[in-house]
Amino acid sequence: MSNAKDFARLPGFRDFPPEEMGLRSHLFDAWRRVAARYGFREYDAPPLEPLDLYVEKSGEEIVGQLYNFTDKGGRQVSLRPEMTPSLARVLGDRSRSMPKPIRWFSIPQLFRYERQQRGRLREHFQWNVDLVGAAGPEADAEVLAVALDGLRELGLDARHIRARVSDRRLLAGILSALGVPESRLLAAYGVVDKVEREPPERILQRLTDEVDLPREVAEAVVGLFDAPELDQVEARFGEDPDVAPHLASLRSFLKILEDLGFGDYVDFDLTIVRGLAYYTGVVFEIFDRAGEFRAVAGGGRYDRLLELVGGESLPAVGFGMGDVVLSELLRERGLAPDTSHSVDHFIVIIGDEQASLARRIAASLRGRGRSVVYGIRGQSVRKQFSAASNEGAREVVVLGPDEVNRGVAVVRSMDSGAEREVELTALLDDAAVGA
Amino acid sequence: MSNAKDFARLPGFRDFPPEEMGLRSHLFDAWRRVAARYGFREYDAPPLEPLDLYVEKSGEEIVGQLYNFTDKGGRQVSLRPEMTPSLARVLGDRSRSMPKPIRWFSIPQLFRYERQQRGRLREHFQWNVDLVGAAGPEADAEVLAVALDGLRELGLDARHIRARVSDRRLLAGILSALGVPESRLLAAYGVVDKVEREPPERILQRLTDEVDLPREVAEAVVGLFDAPELDQVEARFGEDPDVAPHLASLRSFLKILEDLGFGDYVDFDLTIVRGLAYYTGVVFEIFDRAGEFRAVAGGGRYDRLLELVGGESLPAVGFGMGDVVLSELLRERGLAPDTSHSVDHFIVIIGDEQASLARRIAASLRGRGRSVVYGIRGQSVRKQFSAASNEGAREVVVLGPDEVNRGVAVVRSMDSGAEREVELTALLDDAAVGA
Repeated sequence: MSNAKDFARLPGFRDFPPEEMGLRSHLFDAWRRVAARYGFREYDAPPLEPLDLYVEKSGEEIVGQLYNFTDKGGRQVSLRPEMTPSLARVLGDRSRSMPKPIRWFSIPQLFRYERQQRGRLREHFQWNVDLVGAAGPEADAEVLAVALDGLRELGLDARHIRARVSDRRLLAGILSALGVPESRLLAAYGVVDKVEREPPERILQRLTDEVDLPREVAEAVVGLFDAPELDQVEARFGEDPDVAPHLASLRSFLKILEDLGFGDYVDFDLTIVRGLAYYTGVVFEIFDRAGEFRAVAGGGRYDRLLELVGGESLPAVGFGMGDVVLSELLRERGLAPDTSHSVDHFIVIIGDEQASLARRIAASLRGRGRSVVYGIRGQSVRKQFSAASNEGAREVVVLGPDEVNRGVAVVRSMDSGAEREVELTALLDDAAVGA
Repeated sequence: MSNAKDFARLPGFRDFPPEEMGLRSHLFDAWRRVAARYGFREYDAPPLEPLDLYVEKSGEEIVGQLYNFTDKGGRQVSLRPEMTPSLARVLGDRSRSMPKPIRWFSIPQLFRYERQQRGRLREHFQWNVDLVGAAGPEADAEVLAVALDGLRELGLDARHIRARVSDRRLLAGILSALGVPESRLLAAYGVVDKVEREPPERILQRLTDEVDLPREVAEAVVGLFDAPELDQVEARFGEDPDVAPHLASLRSFLKILEDLGFGDYVDFDLTIVRGLAYYTGVVFEIFDRAGEFRAVAGGGRYDRLLELVGGESLPAVGFGMGDVVLSELLRERGLAPDTSHSVDHFIVIIGDEQASLARRIAASLRGRGRSVVYGIRGQSVRKQFSAASNEGAREVVVLGPDEVNRGVAVVRSMDSGAEREVELTALLDDAAVGA
């Protein structure tokens, strides 16, 4: 017979024993509550999709990062690396008959398999929120507000987190004004995305070598990121016809977020462009203020993605928020909930004659929505109290022969140790308000 | 560019647009509520596990039914077909240090891939509830009570469903008394499992040909299933020392279920043995009373499974309840919930000047936990009311310029059409009890 070692879980996957599951459920519950408050409805799709769904959107090079394989029917399939293609597929079938805008969210488990990256997780859960069928800063702001409210719901407010926001159209206008040709914009975004992680001279080199910009243009681009305030950008580029409308739109976006109560959470940051090619407008990333963690969430406007995977041409804005960085951040800030076990009542049975009564009381209390565990027949009272403590019982109901004969049980608070007598009829009566 | 057809979902997988997701969430919420009432804690494990985990438990022949493949690292892996091996793996690491009994549940998505079975689902969700570390009829009854209470929570009571229960030790004792040798018991179980689906002459033939029983023994076994009442079994076999203790145990199990409020739900049925080899005691299946559907749930005691996959040797009892048959049954009985969309408030904006006010009111109402959607700027009032109706709004808050100047909004009930004026300060004040 094999031993336990043979059955280790796969590398990069997590088990969720109850203590861990408690934090995960805490996130999911908060995400669901907040999404509902903004009128978003939950959906889901299969964790496994045809490989083409991802290749079509992201190109062949994506395959190296996917958890893909050939199934028993010879199909090229992949565990989903992100939710947006599935969203586009599901909407593709039905969006034409749906009133707009469409507010949908999902909490999928996502997968990746990069061979070289040992020790990294190969799965995580992600809150995906998308508003489809509405263009303009109101829709953008609603979606970012959902993300920020989701974090606030978990205890992370403007002291802990901030959203760094930009607009690709604005950046495009500014880069054009600085002399970056249209054809080099996407390549330039890729370098701008790295401004924070690499020294200026490396960025300059990338802009000349990789993006193929003349040195003076590259220097102007690098110089741009010394002046990140929106007012400074406006002072410098505000008259430019390729910049002005996007500046106005971004200001409107920021004003709406202020109305929605998130003014303190948001900073303009021209270096935020997001890695993915498909963003077409507002982009944002949410970080812890202390800068200790990777991004907690990221998103933006993607107005051409749905048609790309075969759907209706619809403007859309959305974000993804993963469970891994967020869980670390909550733990680090003392905001992870107490996930130790607890039940409302533990029924201690003294003498087998009370076992049937105990079960009827358990059924009655459970019928009122209480959580109830009762002692195993034949266990000593001491062991049962120890079990009650293990179960995190709030109250212990003791069924002793003498008390039962008098028609009562002794109810002890496990916190205070205070005891009181409660009529058995009250414990058994479904209609009565219990202990 | 490809068209939408190319991106159909994989055969055997389901999408969950919000209407479908609503029913799924309804099941999951009920399952979680009920499990908590019995002191069970939720856990999860990866959807992908080493193939060996399943082969070790069920033998090589299981592979033909699995959604298995070779991953990019050359590992033989499988999407999980059931949860118990993962449970055993997770417990194997930690059960020795845990107080017993362990009450855990999970709601995994499970997968299978049988090449020949076209049109069948390849995934479903399953409520898995296991009580580990306690032997005896109390633990068995608690677990079956969780299953039945989960169904009752969804509106299915003793009029709709029944649990058919037996005990493999009892069946073994009876079969031995009838002359079935110990070595043929497992094979005999396999035939008994088919008693309801095949005619007696076919069962008789299987018992002689496949199980290799003498004809008179096979006839005695077939005859057994004409007398399914527990009293009749007791009258006939009650004195047999291989039968008597298991009869007593089964009676105790039934009595406990009666105490727990499920007496009307349970029928003794000697033909219930469950397909899987690993059950060692009580077994049960839950069906709709009308007999129109496949089993809604099934489970039983498995005292040797955990050690088989490398864990501590612990008695255990559990069940699985799938979402597919249950969803069909709920729909058929008119017990599926209304999953149409609704929000508490829709704010209609008349004139752009009120847009900022609308958003501040939305933020305030959301801060009180209400769901709020507001009109898109520039839309006509008629279109906004139509949007409010599409969102299933309970109330519409109308911000007209005249009313706003007077410091009020008109709140209209979408059900009754009744309108009333509400002070803007009340709508904006976080502390006030709102409309």
